[in-house]
Amino acid sequence: MIRTGGVQQIARGLCQIMGREISKGNFNTNISQMTPRGTLQLPWSSINSVRTMAVLPWPFSFQPRDFSLPNSSWGSDMRRLYEHYNSQCEVETDDGEKKWGVWRRLPSYNRSLKYATGGVYLSKIIQSKARLFTRNIREQGAGFEYVVFVNKQEQKCVCVFQAGHLLEGPPGHVHGGAIATMIDTVTGTHATYLSGPVMTANLNINYRSPISLGSTVLLTCSLDKKEGRKTFVSCQVTNTDSSKLHTEATGLFLSITMGHLLGG
Amino acid sequence: MIRTGGVQQIARGLCQIMGREISKGNFNTNISQMTPRGTLQLPWSSINSVRTMAVLPWPFSFQPRDFSLPNSSWGSDMRRLYEHYNSQCEVETDDGEKKWGVWRRLPSYNRSLKYATGGVYLSKIIQSKARLFTRNIREQGAGFEYVVFVNKQEQKCVCVFQAGHLLEGPPGHVHGGAIATMIDTVTGTHATYLSGPVMTANLNINYRSPISLGSTVLLTCSLDKKEGRKTFVSCQVTNTDSSKLHTEATGLFLSITMGHLLGG
Repeated sequence: MIRTGGVQQIARGLCQIMGREISKGNFNTNISQMTPRGTLQLPWSSINSVRTMAVLPWPFSFQPRDFSLPNSSWGSDMRRLYEHYNSQCEVETDDGEKKWGVWRRLPSYNRSLKYATGGVYLSKIIQSKARLFTRNIREQGAGFEYVVFVNKQEQKCVCVFQAGHLLEGPPGHVHGGAIATMIDTVTGTHATYLSGPVMTANLNINYRSPISLGSTVLLTCSLDKKEGRKTFVSCQVTNTDSSKLHTEATGLFLSITMGHLLGG
Repeated sequence: MIRTGGVQQIARGLCQIMGREISKGNFNTNISQMTPRGTLQLPWSSINSVRTMAVLPWPFSFQPRDFSLPNSSWGSDMRRLYEHYNSQCEVETDDGEKKWGVWRRLPSYNRSLKYATGGVYLSKIIQSKARLFTRNIREQGAGFEYVVFVNKQEQKCVCVFQAGHLLEGPPGHVHGGAIATMIDTVTGTHATYLSGPVMTANLNINYRSPISLGSTVLLTCSLDKKEGRKTFVSCQVTNTDSSKLHTEATGLFLSITMGHLLGG
């Protein structure tokens, strides 16, 4: 999975360049009216050439922790759903060779490339301490425990999310902002797989029923439509057997070109 | 400010009861399709009787920290804006007596009432460790540093927000989910002051330009309209002199009665 991680880290490096460009105000009107993706991915076409990407040097001087792997804080629902999708990530052929399955697990890290400057306004001190919002709590199980799987064939994306005790809104229930954070993370990840680098333009969230702290829910994302540079993704947050709808949302994402990423 | 804090804590206790009711599914169709407010407040009518509320016993065995007070991590912009609004919270009359000003600073705590059970699904372990999502990081300045002021006369609400280095989305910039979290927090607080206890029904967020990590921004909320049990609030996230728009959003909140809060 490091190979895919390599793709992710390289993509985040590009994202950082994009961030600097935005700080400079070098974007056109449409582009400047967005926020760049936090979990920038490369499009499907790039995933198909993941082996080529894998020969690139690992940009870290250490092996970062992949937060999408199981840990002791995961409950039975979280582990069961992880195994359900993870078992479909690799298939064995008749001659015993392993090949990609229909699902892919996306690795998840808590920091950007070491050389990320994060825009012209960012101090060196903040740069060194910056951590991804959804991975900023060290205690396992206390914050966001989640893993994202993508399905190229069905153009579908699922996220298994266990809400920790530090995500409280109303007593005993998950904060609406924490739910919005997961929706932003998963819809944005799905949009980038479908369309390449994108920036969030709009999130429209309908809260239907609250989520209890400590429970595990499923986020399911699908493509609504693509119109030019616009990618429309919908997302539903349900209980683990999808029998109860907690939240539903739509996300609009705008594609940005490599030229934008590289300051062209 | 403890008196107002008392109002807040008591309200959160009611919120917890509401949470349990929702877990039981005792709400009607409309009510069940919401998420209860995390920062539940009492309406203006209750604020006017804050002295009456103050005689109620403090529900904690300790004095909780008020996170809305300045700390050493606050930058110059954060402190300047805090002083600007805080100086208008109390006015001195000709005979030297102090009275409420047009603004009120809202205290902010990181936990619910000790007896909060948080719904039937919540384990005792999670109950004791649960913390408000926006106040769950101990390191000052690392997460959400913010203070909310409300203006009864203008039916307006402002929040001064300094984004810490653990709120990263795209490298060097604030995560879209962290921005959504502050919008949910402030619009919900404003709606409860205008209409009493409410639950979030919808958040519609347009991201215009990214926010750099470590920077301070201003969230300004105003009432759009009230229709029966519905309260429509709009919110703008700008830089400190309001010359640049970062994000704009609308929030729909549904009023819930004391009967709902108390399980009636």
